[in-house]
Amino acid sequence: MKQTTYGLIEAGGTKFVLGIAHGPDAVVKSARIPTEAPEETIAAMLAWFAAHGALDAIGLASFGPIELDPASPEWGHILKTPKPGWSGTNLAGPLSQAFACPVGVDTDVNAAALAESRWGAGQGQRCVVYLTVGTGIGGGAVIEGQTLRGLSHPEMGHIRTPRHPEDADFAGVCPFHGDCLEGMASGPAVLARYGRSLSELPAGHPGQGIVAWYLAQAVVTVQAMLEPGRIIFGGGVMNTPGLFEQVQLEAEKLGGGYFRGKPSEVIVRPGLGERSGLLGALALAEGAL
Amino acid sequence: MKQTTYGLIEAGGTKFVLGIAHGPDAVVKSARIPTEAPEETIAAMLAWFAAHGALDAIGLASFGPIELDPASPEWGHILKTPKPGWSGTNLAGPLSQAFACPVGVDTDVNAAALAESRWGAGQGQRCVVYLTVGTGIGGGAVIEGQTLRGLSHPEMGHIRTPRHPEDADFAGVCPFHGDCLEGMASGPAVLARYGRSLSELPAGHPGQGIVAWYLAQAVVTVQAMLEPGRIIFGGGVMNTPGLFEQVQLEAEKLGGGYFRGKPSEVIVRPGLGERSGLLGALALAEGAL
Repeated sequence: MKQTTYGLIEAGGTKFVLGIAHGPDAVVKSARIPTEAPEETIAAMLAWFAAHGALDAIGLASFGPIELDPASPEWGHILKTPKPGWSGTNLAGPLSQAFACPVGVDTDVNAAALAESRWGAGQGQRCVVYLTVGTGIGGGAVIEGQTLRGLSHPEMGHIRTPRHPEDADFAGVCPFHGDCLEGMASGPAVLARYGRSLSELPAGHPGQGIVAWYLAQAVVTVQAMLEPGRIIFGGGVMNTPGLFEQVQLEAEKLGGGYFRGKPSEVIVRPGLGERSGLLGALALAEGAL
Repeated sequence: MKQTTYGLIEAGGTKFVLGIAHGPDAVVKSARIPTEAPEETIAAMLAWFAAHGALDAIGLASFGPIELDPASPEWGHILKTPKPGWSGTNLAGPLSQAFACPVGVDTDVNAAALAESRWGAGQGQRCVVYLTVGTGIGGGAVIEGQTLRGLSHPEMGHIRTPRHPEDADFAGVCPFHGDCLEGMASGPAVLARYGRSLSELPAGHPGQGIVAWYLAQAVVTVQAMLEPGRIIFGGGVMNTPGLFEQVQLEAEKLGGGYFRGKPSEVIVRPGLGERSGLLGALALAEGAL
């Protein structure tokens, strides 16, 4: 019996990670290409996959905003984005044309939530949220095996949050909302406030506690909206030593014991580590078959 | 062919609304009984239904917290509640025993969201949120025909919100979180701040604008989490003249055009009016068959 071959794409703002896999424990090849202009990037991606032969299905876990409605003529297109040249780019179309196979598309964070719920830290949970804290803040969710989608996909970085009492003067960096979660707690928000990243701050600096407090506010809101069994925190900012534990602690305090899930059990690190992105693409490819 | 007969219960903190229906346009009888001690209330409910004969299915749309996990031995029980005597009450069990028929259980707000998505203002939308603003603030959601449930059910009244600049000194009335959404914008929060209800405030009083601003913050967060096609606002506080329109306006400003749904189209009143509660119970009963 011939084994199934999947093409995997984790499409990000600075790089595309590509992979060939037969299953979650059989990612047989992978590569990174820089995100340049759309034509070049897509051509490089198609060339890489073409060199590996036929594919049975492709999974595309993409930065957003991306059209996810299968009934829309823009399905699989990048929507209006500040990223120069990328607004309106058809990412999924060239893939399905070149390889004549089904293509599963979702956001990178929805795909990561799906991979974590299937093979990682969210196994056995009916509702799993994946939050990434880095250059931006993004969130995805899986409910009973399906990724979350309303009119479009979640934009959890843009939820509203109270203001930390010792952070009254910072306006926030979100070009749309100023002091939404992403505006206050993303990597660029830290840089704009303190001139350096969280892990570069001197010991005793209040910055880390303030960012942990904002992320804990987000945890409470996510619990109030979805009561997920797991809230998985990934992304570069979360590599700051001690930050993860501080978010758990603050969320415990803020929740006041109200929600069913205890923050110390609900808030976890990715079970798949750095692999949740590419395995997210695998989950999408499997779902497309 | 014999028509199907459904027993409907909208279980609230001050009253239970009971009904007999054959379909959404055929609610043939209804009654209200006051919410007393659990034994009395349940006995009165059972007696009312017994007087009407056999039922094919029952729908129970209940105040929370209530256990919704069908695998739990506490399924259909009221969980820990400040309401005296009601913690641990088995609401669903006596119904299924007495009438030997399936019982569908969900929260009142999840059920209202379901009724609105099936027969009301949410028809044709893949994701619908129902928010009620009254003595408390509650929210339910339907995604692709299924009501939202994580570890438990949504508790949308307890999402976090920024602080209105002219409302710096009010601590909020939520016993668990102080200044969460419910702590700042529910009926009791208005009373605690201003000594009267919103509609009793004199013209030009800033209270209504402040409450509208908090509710608009909630709209933005709900959009960032779920991007529902409709956010349906019910509840007594929303009867304040002009408040609904002010929420739409503030949400438009706060969203900054970021989310796909325009607040003027997304934010709507219940299509079923006061009937969304009882018809929610009908939707649950239908689902239980």
